[in-house]
Amino acid sequence: MTKIVNNTYKIELLRKQDTKNKNEKVKNMDDENTVFIGSKETMNYVMAVMEQFNRGSDEIVIKARGRAISKAVDVAEITKNRFLETSEITDIMTETEELEDEGGGTTNVSSIEITMKNNK
Amino acid sequence: MTKIVNNTYKIELLRKQDTKNKNEKVKNMDDENTVFIGSKETMNYVMAVMEQFNRGSDEIVIKARGRAISKAVDVAEITKNRFLETSEITDIMTETEELEDEGGGTTNVSSIEITMKNNK
Repeated sequence: MTKIVNNTYKIELLRKQDTKNKNEKVKNMDDENTVFIGSKETMNYVMAVMEQFNRGSDEIVIKARGRAISKAVDVAEITKNRFLETSEITDIMTETEELEDEGGGTTNVSSIEITMKNNK
Repeated sequence: MTKIVNNTYKIELLRKQDTKNKNEKVKNMDDENTVFIGSKETMNYVMAVMEQFNRGSDEIVIKARGRAISKAVDVAEITKNRFLETSEITDIMTETEELEDEGGGTTNVSSIEITMKNNK
């Protein structure tokens, strides 16, 4: 009886491991084509976008939250107007994300996702 | 001869006046459905959007430049999530505008136009 329980447990563990690996793979694939905008200079992110395109990605996503949203739009506009004229913005999505604040409550913050495509 | 010239002049004037009125009408119509985001509190602009919708507009445009872009996204997200759940964002466009600076040169600034629709 104990053995069976153990087996079930092992299978369960293996299944979890498998799911974990799959999720990580999905996450990594996603991250590779994504540029997250933070507090660095705008041009750093333009370079990051260019790097992704030069590595062969034909579609990248620029993501930002809160005040960095303006910078995300700058990054997309500068990339397409000054650096890569074959690129274009194909989609812009916004949403509201709930973040936990220090007091245990939640704060709402807007976020943006700008999809860019390079028409090689 | 002078009279004819005068008449032509008058007609020209009337035509200009007419065009001017038409342009003003177009401009006003456009402005009525547009909320420009500036340096006031976010909620002021949410109220302005709500006012436009309550006046019967079924489509409004939120416009912003530079750092106000993040606020424009906040205004749209707050309106649709907290105030008017029948409304939605139907289009988001960005572009680069050339502004003249004090020295007579030009500066590039990103701008955004968020179109919202109320599905009554």
